[in-house]
Amino acid sequence: METLAVQLGERTYPIYIESGLLHDGALLRQHVSGGKIMVVSNETIAPRYLPVLMSALEGLRIDATVLPDGEQYKTLDTLNIICTNLLEKRHDRTTTLLALGGGVVGDITGFAAAIYQRGVDFIQVPTTLLAQVDSSVGGKTAVNHALGKNMIGAFHQPRCVVIDTDTLSTLPDRELSAGLAEVIKYGLIGDAPFFDWLEENIERLLQRDMQAIAYCIRRSCQNKAKVVAADEREQTGKRALLNLGHTFGHAIETGLGYGTWLHGEAVGCGMVMAAMLSHRLGWLSAGDLERTCALIERAHLPTRPPTEIEGERFLELMAADKKALGGRLRLVLLRGIGEAVVTADFQLEALRSMLGDYDRGAGSGQ
Amino acid sequence: METLAVQLGERTYPIYIESGLLHDGALLRQHVSGGKIMVVSNETIAPRYLPVLMSALEGLRIDATVLPDGEQYKTLDTLNIICTNLLEKRHDRTTTLLALGGGVVGDITGFAAAIYQRGVDFIQVPTTLLAQVDSSVGGKTAVNHALGKNMIGAFHQPRCVVIDTDTLSTLPDRELSAGLAEVIKYGLIGDAPFFDWLEENIERLLQRDMQAIAYCIRRSCQNKAKVVAADEREQTGKRALLNLGHTFGHAIETGLGYGTWLHGEAVGCGMVMAAMLSHRLGWLSAGDLERTCALIERAHLPTRPPTEIEGERFLELMAADKKALGGRLRLVLLRGIGEAVVTADFQLEALRSMLGDYDRGAGSGQ
Repeated sequence: METLAVQLGERTYPIYIESGLLHDGALLRQHVSGGKIMVVSNETIAPRYLPVLMSALEGLRIDATVLPDGEQYKTLDTLNIICTNLLEKRHDRTTTLLALGGGVVGDITGFAAAIYQRGVDFIQVPTTLLAQVDSSVGGKTAVNHALGKNMIGAFHQPRCVVIDTDTLSTLPDRELSAGLAEVIKYGLIGDAPFFDWLEENIERLLQRDMQAIAYCIRRSCQNKAKVVAADEREQTGKRALLNLGHTFGHAIETGLGYGTWLHGEAVGCGMVMAAMLSHRLGWLSAGDLERTCALIERAHLPTRPPTEIEGERFLELMAADKKALGGRLRLVLLRGIGEAVVTADFQLEALRSMLGDYDRGAGSGQ
Repeated sequence: METLAVQLGERTYPIYIESGLLHDGALLRQHVSGGKIMVVSNETIAPRYLPVLMSALEGLRIDATVLPDGEQYKTLDTLNIICTNLLEKRHDRTTTLLALGGGVVGDITGFAAAIYQRGVDFIQVPTTLLAQVDSSVGGKTAVNHALGKNMIGAFHQPRCVVIDTDTLSTLPDRELSAGLAEVIKYGLIGDAPFFDWLEENIERLLQRDMQAIAYCIRRSCQNKAKVVAADEREQTGKRALLNLGHTFGHAIETGLGYGTWLHGEAVGCGMVMAAMLSHRLGWLSAGDLERTCALIERAHLPTRPPTEIEGERFLELMAADKKALGGRLRLVLLRGIGEAVVTADFQLEALRSMLGDYDRGAGSGQ
């Protein structure tokens, strides 16, 4: 079995990657310190994988909370549903929450664990590519607010991350592509050889070649774990690089209404926009811009923002992002493939003009 | 000026105690690192003290959120009001929240600071005796859930606690008494000489002799700071001693509906009940029980639980408390004045029989 570690001193935890891990009760039990578990899942995932998990954990006291499926349910109200169920089933401070699902389930379950009785244990069992390569690792938990993505949350590290690659067999194509957006991100921000590998292997990934997928999960988790270990709470700027494409993407998600585009789709498009702006600023070569756009397109991700959000509104939404609010807009931009920077040092006019070009239906932007 | 410190390594912070501190803009400014402040207060306190604070902080960008007054508003919904206002006014991660009010305002503002954008700074400016001697110090933040007090929350330490003793001049008598419950608690759990002093000086406190009040705030904060420094996250059991009377008290608050009894009133009555049970178990002498009941009564606090909650329901509510949920009921009990223990090692029958005696209108319990 593949095991990586997120090195965070006394909060260090393992990431297990292997086919069939959902059946491995012994592995999961190692990370449950109390006798009780609350599995949180959603209506799509629970029917498929909850019974397997329940039987793997037989003998422990397990309750389950099944949420509706979708980003639009990542709210304080849904959080309250989880807390109510925990209280009704009398879970105390020694309980362990287990997130079985994609990024939405992981984020909200982690946040519930962060604040239930001022903090309890939790385990991530991500079942989408996006959650496996990105959101389940690193301890960022949150819910959305009507006025902005992930505005309410906490840093709360899981006890372990258990990635059963078999769960990808039932993942819809659209969600597979959404996950690839975050995979491509690691190549763009700091791992050019991985970007090269992705250019070679993107079709194998789309065809669900499990060997290729396992490699891409491992490599992505290695990248993520390294960044998180260096800057757990996004204080030095290193972790902020992981937000490439996200300020653009969050504007799309908030502007269209959560759940209209998948998070990964918005990030894919956001990365194209970040690359385009970097090119306009003279920071990114035409060749690297071309390679970026091409790979994202080959992953079946959108490369143009939705026409519903016109330029000025887009800017407004970007300015409301966590990284910008109240101050100058800071963005993650590209100097080259594998070389990203966090910066507020760019002409806002270039951004405005690019967004205007999209409005006019131009906006290949070169 | 009196300055104490809560020793928590890099999270160490000062407690300032003095008359007139609300006017001391320079002192407050020292603890504001960004340029923006969101004051959170309530409809009772804001008209009295918000203008003073605003003018002391002139030059900084200050917004305010004014909440309805009362424990029944310490909810996730009210939390969302604070977050919405922060977003609408474009407060970013460098903002400082400032809690101006009693325990409810402090708890909810601290929790908002813990989770807004995954954590921002906050300052406690407590204006009730209860908040000054207890809830503003130590970083416990929370909101209530319909099924239990303080069930959703976080540990999040303030940057400083600023206690302007002048604010007590407008405090209703009932709230002064409620604050004295937590003051008496420090004597009971570990500071017998302070208990003696309180027996001598309780009338001076009720008459608002400011010298006596300042002393009792300082002594209480010293006690609280020492416990918090030794056990910040309630892991060794030492901090749990601060919950004397609270499991009984929370049962009363949840059972009657939040806001019916003040928190301090419920704790006062809860301490009498804890003392009574300790005596029934043969742990506390009749003399010490008598002294405990007498002092709480002299502070104008209730010493009998409300008749509306009959014994079995009371037990059920106690079992739902954070310290008990899902396992054996643990209580803080007394071995003597100044000597408390956290224990699950007592006969539940003794508790049940005591609660039954209250039902029958007996329940002096001796």
